[in-house]
Amino acid sequence: MKTCIYNVMILTMNAKQDVIENGYVVFEDEKIVELGEGSYTGVCDEMIDGAGDILMPGMINTHTHTGMIPFRSLGDDCKDRLRRYLFPLESACMNDSLVYHSAKYAIAEMLLAGVTTFVDMYYFEDEVAKATDEMGARAFLGETIIDFATCDSDCAYGGYEYCKWFIPKWLNHPRITPFPAPHATNTNSAEMLQKANELAQKYEVPISLHVAEMDYEMQHFKDTYGKTPIQFLDDLQLLHPHLLAAHCIHVNEEDRILMQKRKCSVAHCIGSNTKAAKGVAPVKEMLALGIPVGLGTDGPASGNTLDILTQFKLFANFHKCEHRDRSLFPSKEIVALGTIQAAKTLRLEKEIGSIEVGKKADLVLIETHSVNMFPIYDPYAALVYSANASNVKTVFVDGKCLVKDKQLVNDSLDALRNNLKEAMQTFIQKATHFSIEEDGAK
Amino acid sequence: MKTCIYNVMILTMNAKQDVIENGYVVFEDEKIVELGEGSYTGVCDEMIDGAGDILMPGMINTHTHTGMIPFRSLGDDCKDRLRRYLFPLESACMNDSLVYHSAKYAIAEMLLAGVTTFVDMYYFEDEVAKATDEMGARAFLGETIIDFATCDSDCAYGGYEYCKWFIPKWLNHPRITPFPAPHATNTNSAEMLQKANELAQKYEVPISLHVAEMDYEMQHFKDTYGKTPIQFLDDLQLLHPHLLAAHCIHVNEEDRILMQKRKCSVAHCIGSNTKAAKGVAPVKEMLALGIPVGLGTDGPASGNTLDILTQFKLFANFHKCEHRDRSLFPSKEIVALGTIQAAKTLRLEKEIGSIEVGKKADLVLIETHSVNMFPIYDPYAALVYSANASNVKTVFVDGKCLVKDKQLVNDSLDALRNNLKEAMQTFIQKATHFSIEEDGAK
Repeated sequence: MKTCIYNVMILTMNAKQDVIENGYVVFEDEKIVELGEGSYTGVCDEMIDGAGDILMPGMINTHTHTGMIPFRSLGDDCKDRLRRYLFPLESACMNDSLVYHSAKYAIAEMLLAGVTTFVDMYYFEDEVAKATDEMGARAFLGETIIDFATCDSDCAYGGYEYCKWFIPKWLNHPRITPFPAPHATNTNSAEMLQKANELAQKYEVPISLHVAEMDYEMQHFKDTYGKTPIQFLDDLQLLHPHLLAAHCIHVNEEDRILMQKRKCSVAHCIGSNTKAAKGVAPVKEMLALGIPVGLGTDGPASGNTLDILTQFKLFANFHKCEHRDRSLFPSKEIVALGTIQAAKTLRLEKEIGSIEVGKKADLVLIETHSVNMFPIYDPYAALVYSANASNVKTVFVDGKCLVKDKQLVNDSLDALRNNLKEAMQTFIQKATHFSIEEDGAK
Repeated sequence: MKTCIYNVMILTMNAKQDVIENGYVVFEDEKIVELGEGSYTGVCDEMIDGAGDILMPGMINTHTHTGMIPFRSLGDDCKDRLRRYLFPLESACMNDSLVYHSAKYAIAEMLLAGVTTFVDMYYFEDEVAKATDEMGARAFLGETIIDFATCDSDCAYGGYEYCKWFIPKWLNHPRITPFPAPHATNTNSAEMLQKANELAQKYEVPISLHVAEMDYEMQHFKDTYGKTPIQFLDDLQLLHPHLLAAHCIHVNEEDRILMQKRKCSVAHCIGSNTKAAKGVAPVKEMLALGIPVGLGTDGPASGNTLDILTQFKLFANFHKCEHRDRSLFPSKEIVALGTIQAAKTLRLEKEIGSIEVGKKADLVLIETHSVNMFPIYDPYAALVYSANASNVKTVFVDGKCLVKDKQLVNDSLDALRNNLKEAMQTFIQKATHFSIEEDGAK
């Protein structure tokens, strides 16, 4: 099966960030085989006219929790929400079916928004893997390991045992990479962090956890060890090229130098971090040291929507304002953080993140016909400052068309929503009661 | 003509911020005549089923420049863009036809995004008034007064002469309020500021200008007068209940107390201010003193999109993060800043900004069927954190349906875009040359 998208503006996101004003891309099965300027003269099974569209690499969401759609818009403005809302409700009502249907819905949301690869951390991650396999997305899926009994384990650290069968089960899937995901630096013992790390190394998969995110986490490490979480992880030999550290809001200069030396990567969640009033991670400083940084939405409980386009705008405004420099992070650098730079955080920059011959055909067409997308002098600026998820028109993953004319090709969104609604019945009851009790307790 | 929207969740935005989970609103011609819970039993000319929708008051954009659509995505990340890009290009290529077609397009964009009232400042404001009249929106339209010759005047302060005929011409229009708009504190003489103010008072219309926005503006007033711009305006008697001061990023505690005493209002443009790296205005502190604050997008050159929903999210994240308090500004307070609080800045809170009997039928239906809008525990949170402009479904201004099923009722967006494109031909040529020269000069 050979497909050509022609008559289209192409943001290649290659090393030179070449923009082809009017050109074509040809892919055969899952791989890009040709691209160029002007007209395509060959023969393909399918010809797609990209007139008026921008073709870009599929966007990459480096940190989310697809099982958490049921939490969206619940207690958003509540203090210490993680420990007050999320942990108790997860213990009380999360189950395999709810995670499965939530993941399907979340993946649909990401595909419709042009996100073709995502990194997930949650419970019942085998269900997320099934959902990902069925939906056709590309994903890194981490089973959470934490120091208390959870919805998918009746003892502490059950996620570690889960990983032992979950990782080999999905290891050879063409689009799925399973990995162990210790919850955070302060919710795992040093011993468990090392064991999880050894498991990741045994299977040659990444490891990811929440790092330097919480004020109380920072205080805990200072009080207990006189260290930062980054120093603590380094002492345990967890800082290495296959660590994707989520958040890293509170990393000081010494931390950053350590991260540079150890070549670990960062999933930066500007929307979630700022909505939760935690602060702005020092991304300018990390990038200056060559630390790979990708953008993440965080889960729908924290970042609400799962599209990377919203993160582009938030990233631009927060980092420019933080440094009082409007010329910092011109929009083409920001689009890179959602594509090729994000691919580097996953050590997958030879496979995805740019439109180049030999790479996977993970491709997104953005329409410029909607009212917010005119005029366009700079396509990167249009993506960062003007676009929203509703401008995503057509999406391919591994050469397969999963979104066409803003609709899912293989699924009905209504059906996905109805299935999720049904699976959520108990959750909604408990969540509503819980909110009332929480309000009473304030 | 009597219309009923039934079977709908209503965010009234009244003094108690009542939410009607399932109810109806009836309006006759331009006024709301009835609303309540449950089923409507009366008879209407038109019955609109709002199942699954959220009905809210039309949103209010308290600061924009509708003539500037041609600038969108041009030189976004360029330092001192106002003086390097905007002023020279305006002088070189702005004309009446371009402003007219730009304003029509911008008003279409706002209506499609649920913005029913806007405050504009630009040149050729008579053209904006014609466009507003034709499109059916509600607007406050300010002709710019500035200390140099402009595209609509061959001498300095031509806008003042323009106001003398422009204001009386539109003064009695049912949806349009004309006003004088001195450009900024530092681009007008003290004498001209006073003359503009007297003109506003003569016609009993507001006055609006850019205040305490620029670092160089602050420095200028400090060096020249040993004052802040707010103190300077107060000495000229420009601080009063009919002043809408745009931006007010750099207002200190003394300034704020003066503003409180004089009962002036603020148009807060969080997206534009932070994208330009200027800083975050002290809105928490202003609101604590009872200073009316509304949200504004700024022009499409600065804020890029003209929808208030985007400002909701930026407002939440920036102000929460600034104060390191995620519970600050719960989403229902933020929605108020785009509706009833914004109406107060225009002294129009008895007419618009909430859904109450006797008020204008400026109404917006938001659909919750799109992937980003499920689930909804808190409709305000869904508007602030999940929604984007593409979720706006149906819009009424003065009881007239201007947007239905996400399409303009009376205009073709394609035709508006084509007309604007045609009017932009010279502009695009000069803008492109100008960009190249600017790049060369760097």
